[in-house]
Amino acid sequence: MEQQRLTAPLRTVIIGSGNVASTIAPALEKAGAIDVVAVYSPTPDHASALAGELRHAVAVSDPANVPANAEFYLIAVKDDAVQSVASTLPPNPDAIWAHTSGGVDASALSPLSGRYGVFYPLQTFTKGVTTEMSEVPVFIEANSKADTDLLKAIASKMTPKVYEADSDTRCRMHAAAVFACNFTNHLWAIADDILRRETGTDLSVLHPLLKETLRKALSCRPAEVQTGPAARGDRGIIEKHASLLPQEEADLYRLLSEKILTYHSR
Amino acid sequence: MEQQRLTAPLRTVIIGSGNVASTIAPALEKAGAIDVVAVYSPTPDHASALAGELRHAVAVSDPANVPANAEFYLIAVKDDAVQSVASTLPPNPDAIWAHTSGGVDASALSPLSGRYGVFYPLQTFTKGVTTEMSEVPVFIEANSKADTDLLKAIASKMTPKVYEADSDTRCRMHAAAVFACNFTNHLWAIADDILRRETGTDLSVLHPLLKETLRKALSCRPAEVQTGPAARGDRGIIEKHASLLPQEEADLYRLLSEKILTYHSR
Repeated sequence: MEQQRLTAPLRTVIIGSGNVASTIAPALEKAGAIDVVAVYSPTPDHASALAGELRHAVAVSDPANVPANAEFYLIAVKDDAVQSVASTLPPNPDAIWAHTSGGVDASALSPLSGRYGVFYPLQTFTKGVTTEMSEVPVFIEANSKADTDLLKAIASKMTPKVYEADSDTRCRMHAAAVFACNFTNHLWAIADDILRRETGTDLSVLHPLLKETLRKALSCRPAEVQTGPAARGDRGIIEKHASLLPQEEADLYRLLSEKILTYHSR
Repeated sequence: MEQQRLTAPLRTVIIGSGNVASTIAPALEKAGAIDVVAVYSPTPDHASALAGELRHAVAVSDPANVPANAEFYLIAVKDDAVQSVASTLPPNPDAIWAHTSGGVDASALSPLSGRYGVFYPLQTFTKGVTTEMSEVPVFIEANSKADTDLLKAIASKMTPKVYEADSDTRCRMHAAAVFACNFTNHLWAIADDILRRETGTDLSVLHPLLKETLRKALSCRPAEVQTGPAARGDRGIIEKHASLLPQEEADLYRLLSEKILTYHSR
């Protein structure tokens, strides 16, 4: 597959100043993929803070002042803000526009330009925490082959893990990530609650177990290393555990155990 | 709290040769807590393999040959085998007997001796994978203060994380571990299924995200760092995700999302 080569960093405006923008913009600039000319955020301090981490970006807090002469506009705001933020910005039909959201269609940006796409880094970013960008997968979509290749070329400067994904695929990917991370985190919260309430400890007693469980899941297929009462069909222990928990937790315990029993009896 | 001091390693018989026995026995012997005189397993090769990793243990595969003159018998077999294995062994009322199971009452060993207890290491062990034993919590129970202190003294040679826990507390601890590890692993299996079926990738694209999610959960209270569509009350994305998944996964997606919505609206 021939990829469009980036002969020079693209003159870029970053829209947003949250965790994603603050991680991705410096990483792409450092990689030589983009040259950030402006950072836009409605909160002047936030725009300035991110602009200050870039080579020669200006901070912009009035959408009317967003430079009209950039080649690339990257919108890195929360999923549910993409459309509303985009509607405040001056269109630039010569430039390519992309957002970083897993759950928003590429076409949300069509009012701004005939060239639009998605640049979706599948990672949770935290300000102040260094992320190894070369491990982060980026999913690309655009409404032309040339712009798909252009966005892939930009991403490829930062990470080897660059994939194409249309909006449906990206949405399924995001649903999988919700299972793997958001739901998982909620189960850790429940475990923490049980331990605090019932045993006078907290989740920290399980930290070694959590680390080992993840280590196994990273090196094997999780379905093949499933352990626990449900995986071995031990209904006695399942009922004993459920009987010791309050209703809400007991219901969830039974339901997830049934899911595992069914899954592993296939 | 005064702990009984171990003046010399206890002459010990290890019952079992699986992952727990193979990890715990060498670690306790190396720490100077025990001196293993015999390893019993009904499978001769298994008994020999573990005995070979200990200083001068003999391998025993006939329960009648289990030495009657040990001071400590540690039964490290699967939860549902504790009772049946114990029933085949010759009692030794002078010795202390303990099992390593989270879900089994201490009294399961009462036919063997008036001195019985539980030595429950809360970790998942894998043969061939080195476990940092000083991070592993051990939960102790015994039917006398003196033997509780003795088991705590043994565990303390291996790890600073030694706690007392009666059978009910241990069972709740185990239930919490099921939420935190077994159920979590099942959600990773589902994510892997979705990715393989729907996107042509697999869970490896989520590995950086999984690691970062765990890193956060280890450094913060999980309930305080919950993210995702349900945590921000985004029912639009929840329904979009569910509509793209097959019935079984969609039902679970909706149910876990409702749990998070309820939990975080409290």
